[in-house]
Amino acid sequence: MLDTKPKKGWKFRVHEIIYEADTPLGKWFDILLFILIIISVLLVMFESVKWIDATYHRTLLVLEWIVTILFTIEYIARIITIKKPWKYIFSFYGIIDFLSTIPLYLSYIFAGSQALLAIRAFRLIRVFRILKLVQFLGEASQLKKALKASRAKITVFLFAVLIVAVILGTVMYLIEGEEAGFTSIPTSIYWTIVTLTTVGYGDIAPITAQGQLIATIIMLLGYGIIAVPTGIVTAEMGKSGDGTKKPAEEPYVHVNTQACTTCAREGHRDGAKYCFNCGSEL
Amino acid sequence: MLDTKPKKGWKFRVHEIIYEADTPLGKWFDILLFILIIISVLLVMFESVKWIDATYHRTLLVLEWIVTILFTIEYIARIITIKKPWKYIFSFYGIIDFLSTIPLYLSYIFAGSQALLAIRAFRLIRVFRILKLVQFLGEASQLKKALKASRAKITVFLFAVLIVAVILGTVMYLIEGEEAGFTSIPTSIYWTIVTLTTVGYGDIAPITAQGQLIATIIMLLGYGIIAVPTGIVTAEMGKSGDGTKKPAEEPYVHVNTQACTTCAREGHRDGAKYCFNCGSEL
Amino acid sequence: MLDTKPKKGWKFRVHEIIYEADTPLGKWFDILLFILIIISVLLVMFESVKWIDATYHRTLLVLEWIVTILFTIEYIARIITIKKPWKYIFSFYGIIDFLSTIPLYLSYIFAGSQALLAIRAFRLIRVFRILKLVQFLGEASQLKKALKASRAKITVFLFAVLIVAVILGTVMYLIEGEEAGFTSIPTSIYWTIVTLTTVGYGDIAPITAQGQLIATIIMLLGYGIIAVPTGIVTAEMGKSGDGTKKPAEEPYVHVNTQACTTCAREGHRDGAKYCFNCGSEL
Amino acid sequence: MLDTKPKKGWKFRVHEIIYEADTPLGKWFDILLFILIIISVLLVMFESVKWIDATYHRTLLVLEWIVTILFTIEYIARIITIKKPWKYIFSFYGIIDFLSTIPLYLSYIFAGSQALLAIRAFRLIRVFRILKLVQFLGEASQLKKALKASRAKITVFLFAVLIVAVILGTVMYLIEGEEAGFTSIPTSIYWTIVTLTTVGYGDIAPITAQGQLIATIIMLLGYGIIAVPTGIVTAEMGKSGDGTKKPAEEPYVHVNTQACTTCAREGHRDGAKYCFNCGSEL
Repeated sequence: MLDTKPKKGWKFRVHEIIYEADTPLGKWFDILLFILIIISVLLVMFESVKWIDATYHRTLLVLEWIVTILFTIEYIARIITIKKPWKYIFSFYGIIDFLSTIPLYLSYIFAGSQALLAIRAFRLIRVFRILKLVQFLGEASQLKKALKASRAKITVFLFAVLIVAVILGTVMYLIEGEEAGFTSIPTSIYWTIVTLTTVGYGDIAPITAQGQLIATIIMLLGYGIIAVPTGIVTAEMGKSGDGTKKPAEEPYVHVNTQACTTCAREGHRDGAKYCFNCGSEL
Repeated sequence: MLDTKPKKGWKFRVHEIIYEADTPLGKWFDILLFILIIISVLLVMFESVKWIDATYHRTLLVLEWIVTILFTIEYIARIITIKKPWKYIFSFYGIIDFLSTIPLYLSYIFAGSQALLAIRAFRLIRVFRILKLVQFLGEASQLKKALKASRAKITVFLFAVLIVAVILGTVMYLIEGEEAGFTSIPTSIYWTIVTLTTVGYGDIAPITAQGQLIATIIMLLGYGIIAVPTGIVTAEMGKSGDGTKKPAEEPYVHVNTQACTTCAREGHRDGAKYCFNCGSEL
Repeated sequence: MLDTKPKKGWKFRVHEIIYEADTPLGKWFDILLFILIIISVLLVMFESVKWIDATYHRTLLVLEWIVTILFTIEYIARIITIKKPWKYIFSFYGIIDFLSTIPLYLSYIFAGSQALLAIRAFRLIRVFRILKLVQFLGEASQLKKALKASRAKITVFLFAVLIVAVILGTVMYLIEGEEAGFTSIPTSIYWTIVTLTTVGYGDIAPITAQGQLIATIIMLLGYGIIAVPTGIVTAEMGKSGDGTKKPAEEPYVHVNTQACTTCAREGHRDGAKYCFNCGSEL
Repeated sequence: MLDTKPKKGWKFRVHEIIYEADTPLGKWFDILLFILIIISVLLVMFESVKWIDATYHRTLLVLEWIVTILFTIEYIARIITIKKPWKYIFSFYGIIDFLSTIPLYLSYIFAGSQALLAIRAFRLIRVFRILKLVQFLGEASQLKKALKASRAKITVFLFAVLIVAVILGTVMYLIEGEEAGFTSIPTSIYWTIVTLTTVGYGDIAPITAQGQLIATIIMLLGYGIIAVPTGIVTAEMGKSGDGTKKPAEEPYVHVNTQACTTCAREGHRDGAKYCFNCGSEL
């Protein structure tokens, strides 16, 4: 932020508000955006409930238009104030933003495209960007670290679970007939995972004695192996917990919420003068 | 308890019995109150069971009146014997006590207000006050400490679970039609949480192949992430467990069950002469 | 076992075989008894399955009589060879042994008393006595120690779960009507525990929007608090695991499977000459 | 691999490709085999789905024949290139390979033997052999070590769960009648395990008040004891995690994926010249 004059144009100030959360205005913008996203998601939900849609159709449509226009303004502002617009447009958030703005316009061209409004739910992921502001950052990063460290173990585990599900699902298909709902091997595998994870819908359930015996074995297996991912994450979390006690050993710098004005990349270290990604001045 | 004369009036003695549990009489009062609360809750339960209410309606009503009168006496005694009655009346327990005493009287003025009797269940929370007497205090406080320490992590976790539920619930609503029970997005989100937490009622269950595939992913996700809160609490509990080994490092005093006669605040240290909250003599 | 002559009568030898597992014959007796118990339990199971009972009624009855006569012989032998028979007769195993021997005789006097045969399932507990022989002893005792150490914490936890179930069950009863299956408060509490423990039968399920919202909260609550008992036991197990590394610090003696000939009490230390319970010579 | 000439025949080279994964060709063979196995399993799955089988029956049969012929070639190659073919034929993988190759041939002799095609699912276990190639080996072995170390504890635990299920299942059979679905003791035991593991299908559910009370106890029991296996594995995993920090203390050599040309035994240490199992030169 120790920059020179020319940058201090209105574009730069808008960029600072939209993309960053260091200034009071930037914080307010993020909070307002968060509320707007929640409202837009609630609107989509309400429209899907028949009696609400029947009673308040007009109100919902008006609110939908207000949200869409605000989203459109935000989307255009994001494109204008960034130096390399294409980088934003084809970034993950850029695509989500576009897809959550367009459906209402499309619904006047193509019928049924209103269903795309549901994509707005994905904008909720932005909440994590806003959460960065508060104390939760440290917690989330610790969680993420523990999950990342145990990624390989969890992959092996899920692989083993899937193979067990395929084998036992096939066995159940051979034992139980059509009447019990085991109509095909994929359905049987679906049932095996429903049982192994202890979800147990009950839409499909074994009725023969042999089927119930194998179901019992699957349940005990599921009950026993639920311990494995728990053990993995717990052990990892214990380690990462120890790690935080001696931060001096692992080089660690504080990262702020500033975003590059050129490529919109975040996660620059405090006091950084150049974007670590594209090299342009911050 | 090393106080002067004037306080030794009947009000003080009754206060000691009702609000404290240090004296034998105070202990007996707490145990009797606990039994009375359990009886009152059982009465409400029995009244809700149709055949019991039809057969023993008269007996239940008489017992209900006895409990209500005893609660009324207790409530009045609590108000009279405390120095600042309004502090008690508008405290959490004060409101619960009032709401659990009034319904039967109201039922003669407004029909249907008998449903409020169910509020009595909340009085069960008092049980924790009585449990203070026994060895469980230490255990509960350790649990509470571990939960408090992992509060931020659990919030992040629940937030992530909710966002995943909203997104996947919306996806399921688009994939599965009305026939499978996914009638609206809120219902789909409800189903997603039912699946993610491995509850699995089965009142709503996917019937299409794509729906079952996504359901399988949700289940494995739920099975995998159940490890996260467990890991958090376990790691925290392990830490707090270590803490108990060196109690010298964290200053710790024994707390008794005495309550201030002025503001009803509890948790005074042994031998305290003045209330730590309002400063009046104990 | 370094005893004097007079004891070396047949009673003593039979006692050694029946009550102890140190000698080869004693081991064989225990294994045979274990097989006999399993057979007796399987017989009761088969009799309860209609088509098996209809087809093999005669065979099952004959086998039932053989098992009953062998159990009778064992029961009489146990009484004769012990010095203080009443101590055995009124011990936990004594009562189980008596109740699992008597039903077939009673069925000729009172109709329907054959249902008591199911009590034989309790004899399965004896399996743990036989398992003592093998390596599992250490494992089981470690498990038991961890569970014992966390007993108080688990009690507090279960208490809290029950109070939450009563309160939320009552709330659900008021919100959901009869149609959804919430016919009475006890039924609602049953449903709350079914949900909280993530069992989720689906015989009762909320149908109103508010009911589904509260159900969602209960599920997330259940999903979150399942971490608590796991955390407790894991922390405790971690501790007891550490304990086994330095057995020198906690005085520990090896215990054999010998039982006192007078009072049938087990768990004497190796080389003990007198029963630690009744003082009579071993 | 530093061997002498005569071995360098085509048999040796094929053996190296089929049984080992050290050479680039060996790696490619394993990956191709993996893809072929997945395809064969998918074919069996598709055939079991009625509408797919009805529409694409011809295509599926042709693909089935291609897979079967490739499997036959592989099976013959494995027998020819190994020095002691019987060792392979009667090994676990040998039998699986034979059983997954034969069904299509048999289906022309015996009707219905096509169901045996499902055995191909077992070939998926080979995936673990291929996974050896990648980073997952270390993770899997650590998981395996933790599971192996807690084997005895888990056995005791499962035994206790089974005995509890038998006893409580019998009690439920006596309490709940035929109407609730508790038609026999084995069915009741099945239901108890469904409840204890928190699966909860809901095909069988208690309807009497006493039955629901016992069901509640079983659920809380299940909820409480799920902590036990988790605690066991977590504690064990924590230990093995510590072990990896000081690998110098436990002698450890790197193992390659080479298989003996004589006995097909795997797991030779890097640079080994002779099979550790049968002593023949590698």
